[in-house]
Amino acid sequence: MDRNTVCDTLHPDCPIRNVLARIGDKWSLLVIFTLDRMPSARFGALLRTLPDISQKMLTVTLRTLEEDGLVVRTVYPEIPPRVEYRLTARAQSLLPHIHALIGWAQEHMQEILDDRKAARVGK
Amino acid sequence: MDRNTVCDTLHPDCPIRNVLARIGDKWSLLVIFTLDRMPSARFGALLRTLPDISQKMLTVTLRTLEEDGLVVRTVYPEIPPRVEYRLTARAQSLLPHIHALIGWAQEHMQEILDDRKAARVGK
Repeated sequence: MDRNTVCDTLHPDCPIRNVLARIGDKWSLLVIFTLDRMPSARFGALLRTLPDISQKMLTVTLRTLEEDGLVVRTVYPEIPPRVEYRLTARAQSLLPHIHALIGWAQEHMQEILDDRKAARVGK
Repeated sequence: MDRNTVCDTLHPDCPIRNVLARIGDKWSLLVIFTLDRMPSARFGALLRTLPDISQKMLTVTLRTLEEDGLVVRTVYPEIPPRVEYRLTARAQSLLPHIHALIGWAQEHMQEILDDRKAARVGK
């Protein structure tokens, strides 16, 4: 990785930083992760699988992921129309990194929670 | 990775999800990334390196990272006291994953920006 290009992430208008902020968003990560496990899902199914996301936030997140070419929305010409969402190849290439992060969080979760509790008690 | 434990990230009270949401936060990632390049930094230096972070947001981000055991704050007994921040071993173990994400963002940045532009034009 070019060290100079990496530096740019410290600047507000850096496109890498912009892309990172969008994929690093909590709901984006969780929707991508959910679509990895439900290869083609309808809006309602996603809404039920992520019980604490609002309908509006799921709509916005899916639209953003679609604009970034990470999710494809397919409308089936049925009555009523069936709309399904699935991950693109680009999103598939991001998955290993998301899984690595989840793995890291899983491995360090307990000690982080313990440290947080200690920090609160110490105050 | 245990598939069942991973499932839990879909539930609002899952600790893995909680940890992920905190490290996935835009400023947390950028502060960790900056401290990787400035091994021991004072508050003012961090503030200058991230020109668009507010003083308050940097304070909150550093405190959160400290609570999560990712950053250590050292106060040197000088007059005036010198305070420096550095990454812990736990944060070091997270760095390869952050670099992998940045690498992915860097690789796909141009096509994502192009897709976004096309999505806007198509509206």
